[in-house]
Amino acid sequence: MAQPLNYGDDVLLVEEEKGRTFLVRLEPGKEFHSHRGTIAHDGVVGQPEGSTVFSHSGRPFLAFRPLIGDRMFKVKRRTQIVYPKDAGWIVLTLDVRPGARVLEMGTGSGAFTILLAHLVGPAGRVHTFDRREEFLQNALANIARAGYADRVEAGILTAGEPFPVNDVDAAFLDLPSPWEAIPAAHASLAPGRPLTLIVPTAEQLKESVRTLAETGFVLIETVELMERPILVRQREGVRPSERMTAFTGYLVTGRKRLPATVPADAGV
Amino acid sequence: MAQPLNYGDDVLLVEEEKGRTFLVRLEPGKEFHSHRGTIAHDGVVGQPEGSTVFSHSGRPFLAFRPLIGDRMFKVKRRTQIVYPKDAGWIVLTLDVRPGARVLEMGTGSGAFTILLAHLVGPAGRVHTFDRREEFLQNALANIARAGYADRVEAGILTAGEPFPVNDVDAAFLDLPSPWEAIPAAHASLAPGRPLTLIVPTAEQLKESVRTLAETGFVLIETVELMERPILVRQREGVRPSERMTAFTGYLVTGRKRLPATVPADAGV
Amino acid sequence: MAQPLNYGDDVLLVEEEKGRTFLVRLEPGKEFHSHRGTIAHDGVVGQPEGSTVFSHSGRPFLAFRPLIGDRMFKVKRRTQIVYPKDAGWIVLTLDVRPGARVLEMGTGSGAFTILLAHLVGPAGRVHTFDRREEFLQNALANIARAGYADRVEAGILTAGEPFPVNDVDAAFLDLPSPWEAIPAAHASLAPGRPLTLIVPTAEQLKESVRTLAETGFVLIETVELMERPILVRQREGVRPSERMTAFTGYLVTGRKRLPATVPADAGV
Amino acid sequence: MAQPLNYGDDVLLVEEEKGRTFLVRLEPGKEFHSHRGTIAHDGVVGQPEGSTVFSHSGRPFLAFRPLIGDRMFKVKRRTQIVYPKDAGWIVLTLDVRPGARVLEMGTGSGAFTILLAHLVGPAGRVHTFDRREEFLQNALANIARAGYADRVEAGILTAGEPFPVNDVDAAFLDLPSPWEAIPAAHASLAPGRPLTLIVPTAEQLKESVRTLAETGFVLIETVELMERPILVRQREGVRPSERMTAFTGYLVTGRKRLPATVPADAGV
Repeated sequence: MAQPLNYGDDVLLVEEEKGRTFLVRLEPGKEFHSHRGTIAHDGVVGQPEGSTVFSHSGRPFLAFRPLIGDRMFKVKRRTQIVYPKDAGWIVLTLDVRPGARVLEMGTGSGAFTILLAHLVGPAGRVHTFDRREEFLQNALANIARAGYADRVEAGILTAGEPFPVNDVDAAFLDLPSPWEAIPAAHASLAPGRPLTLIVPTAEQLKESVRTLAETGFVLIETVELMERPILVRQREGVRPSERMTAFTGYLVTGRKRLPATVPADAGV
Repeated sequence: MAQPLNYGDDVLLVEEEKGRTFLVRLEPGKEFHSHRGTIAHDGVVGQPEGSTVFSHSGRPFLAFRPLIGDRMFKVKRRTQIVYPKDAGWIVLTLDVRPGARVLEMGTGSGAFTILLAHLVGPAGRVHTFDRREEFLQNALANIARAGYADRVEAGILTAGEPFPVNDVDAAFLDLPSPWEAIPAAHASLAPGRPLTLIVPTAEQLKESVRTLAETGFVLIETVELMERPILVRQREGVRPSERMTAFTGYLVTGRKRLPATVPADAGV
Repeated sequence: MAQPLNYGDDVLLVEEEKGRTFLVRLEPGKEFHSHRGTIAHDGVVGQPEGSTVFSHSGRPFLAFRPLIGDRMFKVKRRTQIVYPKDAGWIVLTLDVRPGARVLEMGTGSGAFTILLAHLVGPAGRVHTFDRREEFLQNALANIARAGYADRVEAGILTAGEPFPVNDVDAAFLDLPSPWEAIPAAHASLAPGRPLTLIVPTAEQLKESVRTLAETGFVLIETVELMERPILVRQREGVRPSERMTAFTGYLVTGRKRLPATVPADAGV
Repeated sequence: MAQPLNYGDDVLLVEEEKGRTFLVRLEPGKEFHSHRGTIAHDGVVGQPEGSTVFSHSGRPFLAFRPLIGDRMFKVKRRTQIVYPKDAGWIVLTLDVRPGARVLEMGTGSGAFTILLAHLVGPAGRVHTFDRREEFLQNALANIARAGYADRVEAGILTAGEPFPVNDVDAAFLDLPSPWEAIPAAHASLAPGRPLTLIVPTAEQLKESVRTLAETGFVLIETVELMERPILVRQREGVRPSERMTAFTGYLVTGRKRLPATVPADAGV
């Protein structure tokens, strides 16, 4: 049953005429200010999601709860974040599911950590690491705002150090030098489980794939994804947008194998 | 703690030299046959995931449990399936999470239904509909094989008929004429919640977007995704593949709004 | 034999440090001013192409003659111009060659007219038409600056009117409603010769292709071209640019057929 | 004035129902055979381009002269050829025009040589080199068939050797190791003129760009082009093709600079 909006909720206010969006936490007595007028939080509370609220100057705004994509894009950014086009592919290759335990290195601003926490649910766990304390603090604030603090365990760690977790179901690396963290990630992964990483340059890609193969990963695949917005206008017609994000990074995935023992009678 | 492979498990056998993969259910006394030799199921049982097993002719195969992507791609197909590049984007826009109740129209071969069931977990529910009984039977067999029969409720229904579910958290349409099902999907969605659809032609896209707007959806966005494989060879070098899937469909998402009531004192 | 730069030449001055380029016509006693200093035209004259000249403040600039791509991009624009990625494809499908007579409708800013004039050479002719006199005046000034005034004949004409030329070797249409001009272009083309057009929306594309087929064109093909800049940095590595032009238009080409006469004895 | 088809002409026969094309040289008394019937060359001679001719079994074929794109694609191939999408971009960056003298290294099957010869016209010259005599013989046969033998001078040469030409207007390199030929191409180019090359891997690209910069090229730019076919069906609708060529090569262009002499009074 759908809950009406309440104090303490984050609300996405959508300026109906222009489509601009604002993420606002509802608090008693507070007001939201924009150049299209002021909205009292008290007037939003009690409304169902999808309602129209009007600013004091009569301009319509729609009130929604943020979806996971809004959560990711609205984090306070200290770093580049993983884009939704890539994020969807990554969580599929990571086989993320409710209850899973996932390792992440390179917390960054926490946007992808939030997605992982969203998908593993309250019974799952995200173990995330970053070497920069100030970034981690920002990320943890973003994660807490999304309501997922209790699904995330964060730690400061330099690439190459062992991860203090074992038998994780999946590992994701978002680092400048992912190959430095691959052996430790391999050690922490349960047998057979997937590791996925993202890197921006061809040189980093090559070094990462080489290290994956040497460390004991198989079924290694690399792709890049391009997302192009399409403009659908009833009068002017349908056409792709003139601008797009041309590139974010190469995506690589593989699965942890165990060392093979050639059988005594194989004669190979 | 990682479980060794057991009878009743589906196992992905990976021919190590060529990378070909086979999905096999382990049964006592059975054998897997390929042109690289025979493998007794009994010899696979008890091994941890990621182990190497050898065929009678000494060829190595790796044994993995299938990931969700393998599950989707290995369904018995009666229809075109949703590709992983699109599937990841769709589940993000649908805000899928553990415990969610999701509506799907156009079950097809059930590949995307399996992904939804995977992500909503045992506490969630996928309500899926198709108008073709023979396709639905095939899809249900695929879903059962993936182990998700108890998370899925399927029904036969023609686009335009009301869906026998209410207040669902998300709706996905994969139909030739999605606009016929949009009003019914709107009626079944909880306020504020997302609907996503996929269509192959510009004409279908335009009609879908028009119907979404008229029915009461906002924040409507359309994209297309292109996935290009990258070849990473340590000696020959890094380069994109010469072949790719150039197009699958246009992806459209929007959120259900409620009808606006202009306040008496707004003077608009 | 390479000629040194001379008065009356257009020169591309390239700010060496930032790569910004300026198109300047060399005149006695004149100066070029930029925020990196002043350059006397007299000091550029007499230098070979590719020379470095220094501003009064000691900043290096390279002096080149503009190539055809520079000519196209540096026109004074009153309209969207045809991009090089598309222009190259178009001139190939038009089979442009020295001495050819080419029809163009939609002169726009004249950028593509300049390319056609460049390729047909002094023995060829470009017949270009636009319905807007003020655009045509601007285009003719651009064409004259490129030195191709005597290869181009321009006229004011509304789409649908007959073109006052016959037996042309190729026709190019760059109009909002190219289908209006297709029958007249067909009438002006020599038998068997190609027509190419560019349109931005799916609806315009469909109408154009329908009209081409009905008017008597065959071998009709449609493509879109995407050009992505690649960043090649020796230290940071190789990667695609994050931004690109995602779309300019759909390109359509076809060839004029003659009406078929079924032979009396064919029995078809 | 359009010439009717004659003996000695190459003719593109287009099977009207399926769109398959065949390149045929018209000779007295000869016949063209396909699974849709036989066509006597004598019955094609005298027809204008774009005419319909019927096979003995009554099937319609259209008769066209080949355009430059048909010429390129119909060469007898011993190697990968430059694709039209890339070829158009390359000739623009090379500033090819009637009368130009162009250097090419890597003749391959001669497809791009034919395009260059087509565009430089009878007053121009293409100097093309390959290290493999058997490929060069095949290319020269292709060039002769296209009617451009007298515009092309070919030689056997290994990358790194000096080219026996000077002051050329443009240079194009299509080699596995283009960097080996860059210094010699620089020496043969007139000051300020462009060099363009194509390479398939990121590593080759990086080495090429490094060598270009060190050898004295500026305004270096790299792109890749993607061409996607679009299906335009009046009933089924408009949509991109499901398959495309995902990658051919990276395209790099630059211009030859002269060594800078810092002026005595510059104080830099």
